[in-house]
Amino acid sequence: MKNIAVLTSGGDAPGMNAAIRAVVRKGNKEGFNVYGISHGFLGLTKGDLKKLEVRDVGDIIHRGGTILYSARCEEFKEVHVQQKAVATLREYNIDTVIVIGGDGSFRGAQALERHGIKTIGIPATIDNDIPFTEYTIGFDTSLNTILEALDRIRDTATSHERTFIVEVMGRESGQLALYSGLASGAEVSLVPEAIEEMSTVIHKIDESIRLGKKHSIVIVAEGAISAAECSKIISDALHIEVRTSVLGHIQRGGKPTARDRIYASRFGSTAVDLILEEKHDVALIVNEGKIKMKDFDEVITGKKNLDTSILKMIDELSI
Amino acid sequence: MKNIAVLTSGGDAPGMNAAIRAVVRKGNKEGFNVYGISHGFLGLTKGDLKKLEVRDVGDIIHRGGTILYSARCEEFKEVHVQQKAVATLREYNIDTVIVIGGDGSFRGAQALERHGIKTIGIPATIDNDIPFTEYTIGFDTSLNTILEALDRIRDTATSHERTFIVEVMGRESGQLALYSGLASGAEVSLVPEAIEEMSTVIHKIDESIRLGKKHSIVIVAEGAISAAECSKIISDALHIEVRTSVLGHIQRGGKPTARDRIYASRFGSTAVDLILEEKHDVALIVNEGKIKMKDFDEVITGKKNLDTSILKMIDELSI
Amino acid sequence: MKNIAVLTSGGDAPGMNAAIRAVVRKGNKEGFNVYGISHGFLGLTKGDLKKLEVRDVGDIIHRGGTILYSARCEEFKEVHVQQKAVATLREYNIDTVIVIGGDGSFRGAQALERHGIKTIGIPATIDNDIPFTEYTIGFDTSLNTILEALDRIRDTATSHERTFIVEVMGRESGQLALYSGLASGAEVSLVPEAIEEMSTVIHKIDESIRLGKKHSIVIVAEGAISAAECSKIISDALHIEVRTSVLGHIQRGGKPTARDRIYASRFGSTAVDLILEEKHDVALIVNEGKIKMKDFDEVITGKKNLDTSILKMIDELSI
Amino acid sequence: MKNIAVLTSGGDAPGMNAAIRAVVRKGNKEGFNVYGISHGFLGLTKGDLKKLEVRDVGDIIHRGGTILYSARCEEFKEVHVQQKAVATLREYNIDTVIVIGGDGSFRGAQALERHGIKTIGIPATIDNDIPFTEYTIGFDTSLNTILEALDRIRDTATSHERTFIVEVMGRESGQLALYSGLASGAEVSLVPEAIEEMSTVIHKIDESIRLGKKHSIVIVAEGAISAAECSKIISDALHIEVRTSVLGHIQRGGKPTARDRIYASRFGSTAVDLILEEKHDVALIVNEGKIKMKDFDEVITGKKNLDTSILKMIDELSI
Repeated sequence: MKNIAVLTSGGDAPGMNAAIRAVVRKGNKEGFNVYGISHGFLGLTKGDLKKLEVRDVGDIIHRGGTILYSARCEEFKEVHVQQKAVATLREYNIDTVIVIGGDGSFRGAQALERHGIKTIGIPATIDNDIPFTEYTIGFDTSLNTILEALDRIRDTATSHERTFIVEVMGRESGQLALYSGLASGAEVSLVPEAIEEMSTVIHKIDESIRLGKKHSIVIVAEGAISAAECSKIISDALHIEVRTSVLGHIQRGGKPTARDRIYASRFGSTAVDLILEEKHDVALIVNEGKIKMKDFDEVITGKKNLDTSILKMIDELSI
Repeated sequence: MKNIAVLTSGGDAPGMNAAIRAVVRKGNKEGFNVYGISHGFLGLTKGDLKKLEVRDVGDIIHRGGTILYSARCEEFKEVHVQQKAVATLREYNIDTVIVIGGDGSFRGAQALERHGIKTIGIPATIDNDIPFTEYTIGFDTSLNTILEALDRIRDTATSHERTFIVEVMGRESGQLALYSGLASGAEVSLVPEAIEEMSTVIHKIDESIRLGKKHSIVIVAEGAISAAECSKIISDALHIEVRTSVLGHIQRGGKPTARDRIYASRFGSTAVDLILEEKHDVALIVNEGKIKMKDFDEVITGKKNLDTSILKMIDELSI
Repeated sequence: MKNIAVLTSGGDAPGMNAAIRAVVRKGNKEGFNVYGISHGFLGLTKGDLKKLEVRDVGDIIHRGGTILYSARCEEFKEVHVQQKAVATLREYNIDTVIVIGGDGSFRGAQALERHGIKTIGIPATIDNDIPFTEYTIGFDTSLNTILEALDRIRDTATSHERTFIVEVMGRESGQLALYSGLASGAEVSLVPEAIEEMSTVIHKIDESIRLGKKHSIVIVAEGAISAAECSKIISDALHIEVRTSVLGHIQRGGKPTARDRIYASRFGSTAVDLILEEKHDVALIVNEGKIKMKDFDEVITGKKNLDTSILKMIDELSI
Repeated sequence: MKNIAVLTSGGDAPGMNAAIRAVVRKGNKEGFNVYGISHGFLGLTKGDLKKLEVRDVGDIIHRGGTILYSARCEEFKEVHVQQKAVATLREYNIDTVIVIGGDGSFRGAQALERHGIKTIGIPATIDNDIPFTEYTIGFDTSLNTILEALDRIRDTATSHERTFIVEVMGRESGQLALYSGLASGAEVSLVPEAIEEMSTVIHKIDESIRLGKKHSIVIVAEGAISAAECSKIISDALHIEVRTSVLGHIQRGGKPTARDRIYASRFGSTAVDLILEEKHDVALIVNEGKIKMKDFDEVITGKKNLDTSILKMIDELSI
């Protein structure tokens, strides 16, 4: 009987549990023993794993976070640490590991590959910043959480006729800022991939005010500019009161949306299919709306594009 | 200055307002006068329309329903009724109408085309049952509403160890039943496109019970079997208490999700682009994840496929 | 060391888990062993119980349903069944049972009292129909769930200018119908305690329509009239299309609201305080906003009043 | 025909619209002309008011914010500014103003009283910090919003086994921190009314960790200590990674809960009753669960108590 394992790594994302459930149940169905590794690569180095039965993943499809816990593991870049992890896997006779996480996690998977362990990656990060895939687990939930926050903030912005600067996650990627800007009807979204001149932003808000719109919402990705800095520039330029809100950690948790549960289930199930087909050293991706696979090498070295036509759309629709 | 109009028709769907907003603002930006027709084709026959300014569509992007109201209009199949509608459009010098709705609404649009009015369709129906398009506005919100209801029902199903039959919308299409089944971890989804033998369903629940799972959830699309009938068959066969829930009208309303607002905004904006390109007699669709257009003729006569591999996945993952 | 037990009985209600958590942790803090009885009185007769540690009730405060499962147990009215339950308790040396549920559950508790077991009742039922207490656990969550459903239905009612009849829970009590009517701005609520002439309802809707309000929502408690019957009467009288929605089981589950979690925590903690004070044969109640206790006898034989001035308010505010 | 007016003042609170609706409709029903004053006392000084008809307050019962806008108005402390406001009221022949807001707003009402204008106060502030009343409009919605945020944060706290410090609103009042702490199962709530030694907090978290609970949540009211400061003290003392989240403006907006809509409707309706009874210079309050009235003088000079027994309960139940 074949032994495989699954772990979650990096920042937690809603839908990770649905993916774990799918891996365990589909794996079980195909006759595999499925081990759950706790605390990501860190847990692997410590032998922190146990066999998961189909009942162990009951009642988790709709829960945020990850029952396998997650951890960042800087040390995993060192070969001797990787060797400890491999020793654990050899001991349990596990030859394939399914890694659920972002591109940092996929680098960890590649390290295992170099030691002869087969790996398959499932893209899961709220940032949706992994190259080649249109979707990563957690993005839709996070986007809706941001939207709910923006809808609340809009009530106050309208009632007090104020300008709000709202900072969302995204150090290197503006996906959350971009799509929450379009979906909330914000005046402008500032993203790291296409940093606008602040003068353009100021002009936009100024024009809004002149056209009779008394409140404005500006979304900033944390990697573009901080809410505090953006606020200062705008209030200095326009002599208006500006409020800021940094959404922070609430963007990460919560019950996964339909979309996240569906992709997580499909990714988890497909990952087991790939094992049956003896594929490895690949990540699952969504391309042109379909689930496909892509070599880790390409995914890790690739560049994620941002659809900048959406920025124009935000501008045109928020008159 | 060019005059265009927009209407919503058929069952209301969350995101219709976001689409109206996009049409009005993008249209305005391109120098068009945009008229809003109330009560769909029915309103058009009665001259129930007025010019919409950019401010008229403020603060609606996040609201369910449609500010233009909707109505079914059986009479619109008759030529003399269509002629009255066309007369209204001539009077206002409107040469293009953007029709937001399902395939019934697209048939109405085609009728206008036959009288020389240009039309563009935006797919909006919670059922996601329009051929050639992977997405219709409202589907994601409805799916998440169903999921929320299922999460609630699951609490009672678990606490009382009961089997529940939950009936969702879908007379001819099982899209909602299919994807809510996968996303909720239901035991089985019954869809009109691939009606399973009830003996299979009974076997599945029986097996679940034998494997120690004390509660089960079965999703039925209204077009496949009614919850009442399904319940009777199962309780008769297995001698267990079965509860039913018909979700009904709550599936139709509510604040649109991010996905619905994003597609609605993109569809609305793109529809105006098509007018600029002098395209008409087409519906917007999502194909391979991208927004494209398709002749009304094809859309109306086409057949929407259901991904039946999802049925197998539901079965495998709900052990 | 003193042994006590806790069970949940009757229909599940959101907040039951928060109450269980409070009983276990506060009990533990006071030096008691706390046993959890599964499946209510039925489980007690079968010896279905185990000791709960403080960690066993972690991560449940925000979950709907009940981790102790619930069951109705008609047989518990028979003395020999009660004796089996008492034998279980004697075996485990348990002298006090905290019963979380409705008035049916309190009758079960009284039966235990007659056999020398001390009992304390915590009022938990979404119906809020227990005499002398202003509040029962689950009511607030259920009310908000109904409201959310009504807000969705309102979108369709408005968009299609229709009248909706919405049936909510409440066989003998109109609390949910009454307060959801006020909170949703419904035209009228029909409650079992004060059944209005249908002619009044018809007049009200007719007047609404004449005053230009094109849509109406009528809430009916299941114990007053069924949605189907109400719909028929109205559509026959006014010759308008009427839609119905029976909310059903979704009213019972879901994450408890703040109010339910707060009262559940306070009730659970206070129940343990009562044990320390050697009180028993009583239910906790909320009276004039404060938590007090009341003899089971009074609670069971009492009559719950409905504030009918709210009916007048619903009428006056829904012009 | 009698003329009355209504305004909202201070920070916006969910439920203000439901109160406005009730005032307008009940007032109208009693034969009054009801004027809506925009932008609070500031708008009054500028003559920014208009008559509201029953239709003007349709479809707002479920909306956050305030359709009458709100504003802070420091200048209103000056007599000549008050006189301008009074002149406006005289001009429109308005003799009574219903003021919806917090205690600052009630001071504005008192100022009007000194100039011969009758006023009635409706307590509305998310902070629930007004003396003598158990409830203020907006508190329940805000509490549930905080809880939802905490449930999300808990997912990450659990998955990464981290300690989180979450800062909620409350400069002088710990009501939100107190009850969100109890309802979320937080380890501790820090409130301005009863500032605990940080050593106690550190001890509590340390003990939690030793007992095997790997994650903790500490709630701080902004008036007690900032999240940043609290975080620094804990991480310095225990050498653990601590994350912070400042919930900020999301606590203020959003759709009002059932409880807020119910109290808002009852307050609004009762305020009109008081006018009929020729009462004025009073605020409505909730006392022992009932709606009563209280002289402005007492309300403004009184002191709001915090039920510190809840702090003990939080501690005991979060083992």
